[in-house]
Amino acid sequence: MFLVSLNVGRIMNNRRVVIIGAGFAGISAAREFAGNAVDVLLLDRNNYHTFLPLLHQVVTCELEPEHIICPIRKLIQTQPNVQFATNEVKRVDFVSQVVETNNCLIHYDYLVLACGSTSQFFGIPGVSEYSFSLKNLEDSVILRNQIVSCFELAQEEADICRRQELLTFTIVGGGATGVELAGELAELIYGTLVNDYPVINFRQVRVVLLQAGDKLLPEMPLRLSVYAKRQLQKMGVEVKVASRVAKVMENAVYWENSHFKDLHFKDLQAIPCRTVIWTAGVCGNPVAKKWGLVTDSNGKVTVLPTLQVPEYPQVYIVGDLAAPQNEQLPMLAPVATQQGATAARNILRHIKGKNPQPMRYQHQGSMVIIGRHAAVVNLFGKVNLTGFVAWLLWLFVHLAFLPSTRNRFHVLLNWLWSYFSRDRSVRLILPLYPASKSNPATQSTSDNNKRVEIN
Amino acid sequence: MFLVSLNVGRIMNNRRVVIIGAGFAGISAAREFAGNAVDVLLLDRNNYHTFLPLLHQVVTCELEPEHIICPIRKLIQTQPNVQFATNEVKRVDFVSQVVETNNCLIHYDYLVLACGSTSQFFGIPGVSEYSFSLKNLEDSVILRNQIVSCFELAQEEADICRRQELLTFTIVGGGATGVELAGELAELIYGTLVNDYPVINFRQVRVVLLQAGDKLLPEMPLRLSVYAKRQLQKMGVEVKVASRVAKVMENAVYWENSHFKDLHFKDLQAIPCRTVIWTAGVCGNPVAKKWGLVTDSNGKVTVLPTLQVPEYPQVYIVGDLAAPQNEQLPMLAPVATQQGATAARNILRHIKGKNPQPMRYQHQGSMVIIGRHAAVVNLFGKVNLTGFVAWLLWLFVHLAFLPSTRNRFHVLLNWLWSYFSRDRSVRLILPLYPASKSNPATQSTSDNNKRVEIN
Repeated sequence: MFLVSLNVGRIMNNRRVVIIGAGFAGISAAREFAGNAVDVLLLDRNNYHTFLPLLHQVVTCELEPEHIICPIRKLIQTQPNVQFATNEVKRVDFVSQVVETNNCLIHYDYLVLACGSTSQFFGIPGVSEYSFSLKNLEDSVILRNQIVSCFELAQEEADICRRQELLTFTIVGGGATGVELAGELAELIYGTLVNDYPVINFRQVRVVLLQAGDKLLPEMPLRLSVYAKRQLQKMGVEVKVASRVAKVMENAVYWENSHFKDLHFKDLQAIPCRTVIWTAGVCGNPVAKKWGLVTDSNGKVTVLPTLQVPEYPQVYIVGDLAAPQNEQLPMLAPVATQQGATAARNILRHIKGKNPQPMRYQHQGSMVIIGRHAAVVNLFGKVNLTGFVAWLLWLFVHLAFLPSTRNRFHVLLNWLWSYFSRDRSVRLILPLYPASKSNPATQSTSDNNKRVEIN
Repeated sequence: MFLVSLNVGRIMNNRRVVIIGAGFAGISAAREFAGNAVDVLLLDRNNYHTFLPLLHQVVTCELEPEHIICPIRKLIQTQPNVQFATNEVKRVDFVSQVVETNNCLIHYDYLVLACGSTSQFFGIPGVSEYSFSLKNLEDSVILRNQIVSCFELAQEEADICRRQELLTFTIVGGGATGVELAGELAELIYGTLVNDYPVINFRQVRVVLLQAGDKLLPEMPLRLSVYAKRQLQKMGVEVKVASRVAKVMENAVYWENSHFKDLHFKDLQAIPCRTVIWTAGVCGNPVAKKWGLVTDSNGKVTVLPTLQVPEYPQVYIVGDLAAPQNEQLPMLAPVATQQGATAARNILRHIKGKNPQPMRYQHQGSMVIIGRHAAVVNLFGKVNLTGFVAWLLWLFVHLAFLPSTRNRFHVLLNWLWSYFSRDRSVRLILPLYPASKSNPATQSTSDNNKRVEIN
């Protein structure tokens, strides 16, 4: 047992593995330890696991936030050797092998670091201040609130310029997140909101997708990129490729042609808008660098093919935070899942006195939904699918991988409902408060700043 | 049309009715105007209507908050003469007949005030600072966060006294809200959470229900009160009747026997706990008094039997805020709904030159759920039901009156799921942020503090 208060009669001889982060990689690692004689402690700042591939459907009022998350305790309920604690990790001391949280110090024999990634802004002025990110559940609800609020405010706005700003939504980044969000947002606006606001002129509404590269979905074959662009345009999205964002301000986003780098600021163009959604860059969670690990320019930790940190072989890095020396892997859920499982297997091998094995990534493919009856799928890097079949496959795969059967029922119900009624019912502005501010229990515990040491 | 920006070609000859508040009473009034030649503007600070009778099931992780609310625009979509705006009303000038919101002044011919009620603390020390209310959706999510957080913290708490405080939940008030909450909370704790926290000793967990009166559910027949008490005790709730709360502190609630008023502080007893839920008092929304209306000791506005304010006959008060001179009505959804409809009909009569009619309340009954297979129902003040039949009836009636078919499907799915699996899946600590803080759109509009005047 790890925490003093939990110390109710367990055998202490087992090796202790601490997993930081309960995303795809962390959960996958915890599950791989099932039935083995190791004591696992899983830490996350939230008490739920988020199924990130459906985040854009929370933004676009299609799904309730609760349906793409699952209590972590439910995911590990069948594994008596896995403990979970909702705790923010403050620091890791890799030399003395101690994890420091809000209220205790935890010694580990092995550490799996699965802290994920955050948005990267490349130092472009105004992006961090004025744009919205989409990296976690809070982001998605904040963004949903923003989109619906813009329509509420536009209805009452007398000034035509300010109304135009409110009714323009710019998505920066033509990768999977940007394309999915642009498509779903167009469906929300022209399918549902158009009935809610009879007094708004919907020809004034703009959904703009800015992509710095020359094609959308750069990691996909050209045919699929072309299809995605054509579909988005059909749905009313203005797609601008080779358009690099130069500056974001409160009421506008400025962009320039990517090919004319030298003529900086010469052909700078403005899109007046209040909502800029930034999906153009991702980097490793900055805590890794802060805690003293060596990171690359992308904020990822360079690890051995076995996923171990060269300096600390008992520390494994998995998921978005890992940059294996031997191969560059995309930031996808299957990569994280496979890495988590590999790290766990390597720790078990190590405990048994065997050598850890290098990770071998098996690419199964990637898929992007664009809208009703429209998606692109690339299977095993070989088979390309578009249209209805790809769309059905996307829905099926995401439903199958969503954690918890109950969530699957609710999501299926939502999808069927919005498919047949063309109505998205979660168009709500929900003013909820952060647990820490409203929560006397949390507050008073962090007040008495006594840390408990656990060995 | 009411708002300048909405001013796109409607006939201005219609009378204008402003309805403040989109609860049961406000929505009911708005619906009653369907098909009539009046322009109705419905105002609410939220863009959704909340089905309050299911609030306690959000607290106890049974339902998602999104499933007991419905976008107001969806409720009025079929009524072209009803407009809606998400707006906080700052002030009403009853003499010049103007409603002042954040960003505009709205002239009305008739006003329906349906601002509801808030918690009343009777000046008991510490209640407003340290207790949790349950009056709206935010309250319910904050309280859910609190309950789950207490278990998370208790797991890590080494000190046995502090752990006892975290694991004690005191509900003050033995009315319908208190009884329903106590029962559902006991089911959540002993049915679901007990599997989540194997290291917590659940014999340490306490759910206490304090009732100042001599019986639970004072408005119900004695037989039902006795049944409710016995059921709660069976489920593990400590029911203390004739126990009045004297003081609430951060870590404890103090109570005394209601019958020994003179021996104040003599037999004061303490329950160490971090979570005190206040359901013991309700009063009319204080804005009524603030805006200059005459209110009774309970904060309600005294109105004529026709629901008109004596001083301002074009102003109607409906719902929890109304105290008709002729009869005292309970604060129930059916009362609010019938009052809303009556006010709307009276306004229509007035426009046609007829006299407004007094409200005639038809009491259909009241029902309280306690737990699995346990509820009490009183129909028409005559028929009393308990147990399985009452429980089924409670579920059926609440499902039938819940707005939106989609919500009904989801709630039914949740009920079936938790009935058969005994699992409540929404045990989440959701740190979401208020729309106004995260929302640049809202901020910048309130910055340019120019109000638009609408006549």
